[in-house]
Amino acid sequence: MQSFELTRAYIEGLKEAIEKEDNAKVLSMVGDLRAADIADVTAELETEEAQFVYSLLDKETSADAITEMEEDEREELFKELPPEYIARELINNMDSDDAADVLSELSDELQVEILQKIPDIEQAGDIADLLAYDENTAGGLMATELIRVNINWNIFTCLREMRKQAENVDEIYYVYAVDDNNIFKGTVTLKNLLLAPGTTKIKAIYDPDNLTVHTDTPAAEVASIMEKYNLVALPVIDNIGRLKGRITIDDIVDVIRDEAEKDYQLMSGISEDIDSDDNVWMLTRARIPWLIIALFGGILGSMVISQFTGELSLYPQLIIFIPMITAMGGNVGIQSSAIIVQGLANNSLGLESTAQKLTKELGVAVMNGLVLSSLIFAYNLIFTHSYALTISVSVALFTVIIFASIFGTIVPLFLNRIKIDPALATGPFITTVDDIMGVLIYLMIGRQLFEVM
Amino acid sequence: MQSFELTRAYIEGLKEAIEKEDNAKVLSMVGDLRAADIADVTAELETEEAQFVYSLLDKETSADAITEMEEDEREELFKELPPEYIARELINNMDSDDAADVLSELSDELQVEILQKIPDIEQAGDIADLLAYDENTAGGLMATELIRVNINWNIFTCLREMRKQAENVDEIYYVYAVDDNNIFKGTVTLKNLLLAPGTTKIKAIYDPDNLTVHTDTPAAEVASIMEKYNLVALPVIDNIGRLKGRITIDDIVDVIRDEAEKDYQLMSGISEDIDSDDNVWMLTRARIPWLIIALFGGILGSMVISQFTGELSLYPQLIIFIPMITAMGGNVGIQSSAIIVQGLANNSLGLESTAQKLTKELGVAVMNGLVLSSLIFAYNLIFTHSYALTISVSVALFTVIIFASIFGTIVPLFLNRIKIDPALATGPFITTVDDIMGVLIYLMIGRQLFEVM
Repeated sequence: MQSFELTRAYIEGLKEAIEKEDNAKVLSMVGDLRAADIADVTAELETEEAQFVYSLLDKETSADAITEMEEDEREELFKELPPEYIARELINNMDSDDAADVLSELSDELQVEILQKIPDIEQAGDIADLLAYDENTAGGLMATELIRVNINWNIFTCLREMRKQAENVDEIYYVYAVDDNNIFKGTVTLKNLLLAPGTTKIKAIYDPDNLTVHTDTPAAEVASIMEKYNLVALPVIDNIGRLKGRITIDDIVDVIRDEAEKDYQLMSGISEDIDSDDNVWMLTRARIPWLIIALFGGILGSMVISQFTGELSLYPQLIIFIPMITAMGGNVGIQSSAIIVQGLANNSLGLESTAQKLTKELGVAVMNGLVLSSLIFAYNLIFTHSYALTISVSVALFTVIIFASIFGTIVPLFLNRIKIDPALATGPFITTVDDIMGVLIYLMIGRQLFEVM
Repeated sequence: MQSFELTRAYIEGLKEAIEKEDNAKVLSMVGDLRAADIADVTAELETEEAQFVYSLLDKETSADAITEMEEDEREELFKELPPEYIARELINNMDSDDAADVLSELSDELQVEILQKIPDIEQAGDIADLLAYDENTAGGLMATELIRVNINWNIFTCLREMRKQAENVDEIYYVYAVDDNNIFKGTVTLKNLLLAPGTTKIKAIYDPDNLTVHTDTPAAEVASIMEKYNLVALPVIDNIGRLKGRITIDDIVDVIRDEAEKDYQLMSGISEDIDSDDNVWMLTRARIPWLIIALFGGILGSMVISQFTGELSLYPQLIIFIPMITAMGGNVGIQSSAIIVQGLANNSLGLESTAQKLTKELGVAVMNGLVLSSLIFAYNLIFTHSYALTISVSVALFTVIIFASIFGTIVPLFLNRIKIDPALATGPFITTVDDIMGVLIYLMIGRQLFEVM
């Protein structure tokens, strides 16, 4: 079966079948879909309709699909379900990391209630342990399901034990070797298991040169390690080296996507994680904080200009280039800070010092400034017939470009140094400051030049 | 060994060892590093120094590290190396997909010369086949190395054949089942191979419900399928269903990262793929095109204002809020288009029609507009003592917010419809149009209101 395409006709057909309580039809439409597709389908349904669909599916499929749902939709669904059912039928059939993620969205009381009702005590214990970790650390990302072998076993024993353990593990990528105290020793690749004779000891074939992370390693660092070294799974150890779990690449793909989206949203001045299919109220709440800050920036800018009303009535030609100066300052500032933020995010800044970065940025700014100032100089010379204006605009534009470049480089580096997300420096904050400074620089230069010319 | 940290002291020590041609020291410093770390190290060296380091390492390690290098640095290095050496020692030791990627950066003549010198004819053939695919398709991403078993084999035969094939495959995630004509039938998980008795036929245990992509499926679509369904490897088939290769998640992580970076750069008005450690010339070239477009936008804006010089000298208070109006229009427009672009990029727009999206966006715009206009209304009422100005600014701000929201929503949807990258609508283009329209709307409203009040 290929990729499923969700259509309006499909949803209408499904809603009709649900309304008629035509179980066979609903099952035939949904039963063969993959978990992620079922989650997409139920996202288009009312909560009660979704509940009806899940009640028809087998527990494993329901648990997988519910894992794939958006948080807010899952929350709606869970409100309608008894804790007993959530514990026995859903959480009990999820991988430990997914179960912990899902539970962590619920209230503390509900978490405890559900944990106590999970029939498999070992599973309940694993989930409770995982819930203790910060969700933005390796501990919060890892699953406890993995294949664990003792370095003293031979391959025969190992394969026999793996058969037992494999029933609880969805995907086997690596087999982890531990000693008698569960201290992590290294990785056995499936390739080595296949290639060596059955009497070989694990000791002889495991790879001791294996990257590990600690349970408290930040998620972003885990992502950059797995990305850099092209890993599909990474073992997680505690402070004394015991193997606690493994992180798989599918969870890291989500971390990478989330980090990129967060940077993108900060740059566009959106303060919460929203989707375009969220409702008007959520969208407004996510968008208005930065707009209010920008509004206050605008008020500051208006105060700057009101200091120059005398000059502006004497030299009214100055007015017409105000929006150009502010716009260019904003554009240059965003470019500068975006390059730094991206470099920080993907660790590509290399060994350059701050001074080297600033020197280079200054070089770029001078080149950009010269080109753009010359263009506007030529334009004004031809069309405006005012030397004072021509020179003012070009000198101000050059100065604003230099200022915006340096400012856009320093701010994210500074924020990063004091452990604040540098991506904050790419959004409305930088353009607002550039606007105010741009207009100030422009009018000060204009005043001087118009007075002397 | 844990993650390696690159320091200036380390590079200085290494450069010194290279200068003294102290082979033992260089090898002790570099020999045990992972491929990605070696690539980071050689990025900090001169080309000749890097060449010296690679000449000391074993071929496999060199090939892996060179695969991990940045394209421009690899290009520099290859200029210094004889094609014979590149073919025999480097390309011959790379996976087919990496080899094709590396070769595709070279001139056509050099590609042919190197291909002819690869000692393993089968490998050379695979690479030549891969080079024929567009790099932004599944064919361009896939590797030909995979484990292939016949559905008529039993598990014993299968394991014996896998041992043979495994020598050429770095990582085994899945085993692919084909019929006698190499038509892809499905996937055998390692778990199933472990759990079933040895005499079981593959036919009985393979999973026929397996997603595949075609060699010409676009890379972005491959990425979204693998991301959505949490896959680590995906088989690639041709038009008659023959198994041609497999795509692994590490390549897709790169696609996801690249897509996100491209959107981020377009939003920040950067037109080429650059890193902060590129040189001044490359950085300038990537940044100036959008700045020039924004400059022309600024000139258009200045023409709009010059139509209102009469009014502005009559009502000079209007001037001081010009930057605020343009800034707010820009900020709102970027938010609107960013939400749409992100929704298009991660397929989260759901089944909403364009009309529904616009209605919702209008709702958000009205709410934002009311809040912000009220704030500036209150401010002006208290501080500016001009009813005409107070009302003009608030009405204009409200109108500009509505315009920028609708425009920022329509443009990316329209670009996407006509198959142009919608992310183009998030950068300087949208802010420039919003600036011009903002100033026009503001001054027209101001003129009307000042005349009647």
